[in-house]
Formats: sequence, structure tokens, C-alpha cells
Amino acid sequence: MKTTGLIIVNTGNGKGKTTAALGLALRAWGQKLRILIIQFIKGNTSYGELEALAALPGNRLQIYQMGEGFTRKNTGVEQADHIKAAQKALEKAYAEELSHSWDMIILDEINYAVKFNLLKTDDVLKIIKNKPPELHLVLTGRDAAAPVIEKADLVTEMTEIKHPYKKGIKAQKGIEF
Amino acid sequence: MKTTGLIIVNTGNGKGKTTAALGLALRAWGQKLRILIIQFIKGNTSYGELEALAALPGNRLQIYQMGEGFTRKNTGVEQADHIKAAQKALEKAYAEELSHSWDMIILDEINYAVKFNLLKTDDVLKIIKNKPPELHLVLTGRDAAAPVIEKADLVTEMTEIKHPYKKGIKAQKGIEF
Repeated sequence: MKTTGLIIVNTGNGKGKTTAALGLALRAWGQKLRILIIQFIKGNTSYGELEALAALPGNRLQIYQMGEGFTRKNTGVEQADHIKAAQKALEKAYAEELSHSWDMIILDEINYAVKFNLLKTDDVLKIIKNKPPELHLVLTGRDAAAPVIEKADLVTEMTEIKHPYKKGIKAQKGIEF
Repeated sequence: MKTTGLIIVNTGNGKGKTTAALGLALRAWGQKLRILIIQFIKGNTSYGELEALAALPGNRLQIYQMGEGFTRKNTGVEQADHIKAAQKALEKAYAEELSHSWDMIILDEINYAVKFNLLKTDDVLKIIKNKPPELHLVLTGRDAAAPVIEKADLVTEMTEIKHPYKKGIKAQKGIEF
């Protein structure tokens, strides 16, 4: 079967955008695809699922954590540094999509990076435009730009209906991180 | 930190309900939690992500596929057989949640099993009621019953904004299966 590379967007204010993308990476890995994950935001945090993905045998899945952990806390990092890190991640994404080394590239939180003016919408559109036809491209993050949604094949909005924080329950290991 | 077991529901008509749950399993695995996945519907199908989860080292994650593959095609299986399989999965879920062998139990497509009258809403409420306080319970499937949503801590609705089938693109290996 010929592969049609899809442009997939997980957006919305709910949970599961990144988690579903990593679940997709898992599915793709099981189907022998080669997967690259570039994280645009969560640069200095450690996540259980990254540990787990790293535990998968072989070398078919790789993760690059770029960025400065922008969203989680005030780390004293300047906006200019965030922009620089995001640009670096963007250049990585351009180079890797043209390398034909991957069947799927996940650009985690790239929509969020645009929302916070670390990247331009046009930067993302350029990645989409340069995509080899057979490459699957997955873009996550809330508030995906309208022109990005326009170009996408599969768009899912994750909407928060209920959240435990609102009941006063603290973030739980293995759930929130 | 004391663990508060959450009741998590992924519902809605969009993609990513099961995928996000499996991504959550991955995260939990990376955090050394013990995870049991019971699939209520996809009994006779093979999924890339299950291959991948099975490739994780150790024995901390187990998957039980119950049910008769109800949704995918007409297999000639009678409704009575589907009900029997769903009941068996339900009994497994009761027994396992009380075994204290798991930190997280994922009841994949259990909402769908209720929608198709294989289970009763009260069956699901009983599982929720019997849950040990520290156990995380994840329930997936579209059209989650209102009383189940009522009991849940974290509810996310995955909404389809755009789907490639509508553009005439066929299901892709590593994406759809």
C-alpha cells in the first residue's frame, strides 16, 4: 500500500494533545515506522513517557528536546533565549524532514510556540510546504493557527470537560507528568 | 507524595481517545507504575501500539484483549456472544481492581460497550464504586454515559474537526492501525 503522509493536528484546551501524539508514535513504532519527536517547549522537564519511549528497543524512535521549558515556571530565561531555542528546533525540523530518515515527525507544542510568538505561523506553513509526500507530520499544542488547520488532513480538538485541579486534587505522578 | 487515584474519561467522536490512554500508559510506565489495559471491543485486531507496549522491558504493563472485534466488520458473531465477551471483560476488571496488583487500569472502549448494550451503565458505575482510592482508572470510548462523567475527575472530549477519509485518503499504517 502506498503511504500518504498525513498532516495531523492535535489542538484544544484539554489534555491528551501530546499524550495522543506519543501514543501515535507508539503505534507507528509497532508498525516499524521511524519516528522523530521534536519538543518545542518542554526543554528542561523529564516526562515518564519519554523514559518509556527511550526504553523501546532499537533506534527507530528518537526524541529531541529543544526549548527552555517555557510554560512550566519562571526560570529567569529571557524571551530572546526562548526565541533562539525555538528557531533552533525549527531548523532541526526543516533539516530532518528533508533527510528522508523518518516516516513520522512529531513537532510537539509547535502551535504553542507560535501562540507565544517564539515562531511565526509562516515558519510552520513552510515546514508543511516542504514536507515529503510520504512523511507523516504531527503538530500539537493549543490554539493551532487557522492557516495550519486549513492545511491539515486530520484535526482533533481536545476539550476539557472536567479537570481534577478544580476539585483541589494535586498533579499525580504518571498522570500529569 | 500520596497518590490520589483519578477517574479519567476520554470520550467524544474524534480520534485520540484510545491513543491518548495508551500514551498515558506509556507515561505511567516511565514513572514505574504498574498498568493493566483491558480492551472491551478490539478483540481480534492487532494494533501497532500493542506491539510496542509489549516490547517494553519487564512485566509492569499487561494487556488483555477481550471482546470480539465488534466494531470493525461483520464477523458473523452474534450479539449474545459480544455480550458474553464484554461480561467476561467486566468480571476481569472487577477482579483486577480489587487485586491491588495495578496502579492504573485502562478500560479501553468500555463506554462504547455500554452504548452498544453489551454492558449496563450500572456495571461501569460499580467498577468506579469499587475502585481502591489509590488506583487510577481510565475509561475510553465515545458517548460516555452521563453518570460516568459525573463520577469522573478528568474528562476530555476529543472532537473531530477534520478527517482525511472525507478527503478520500485511505487508512494509513501506523496512523489508523
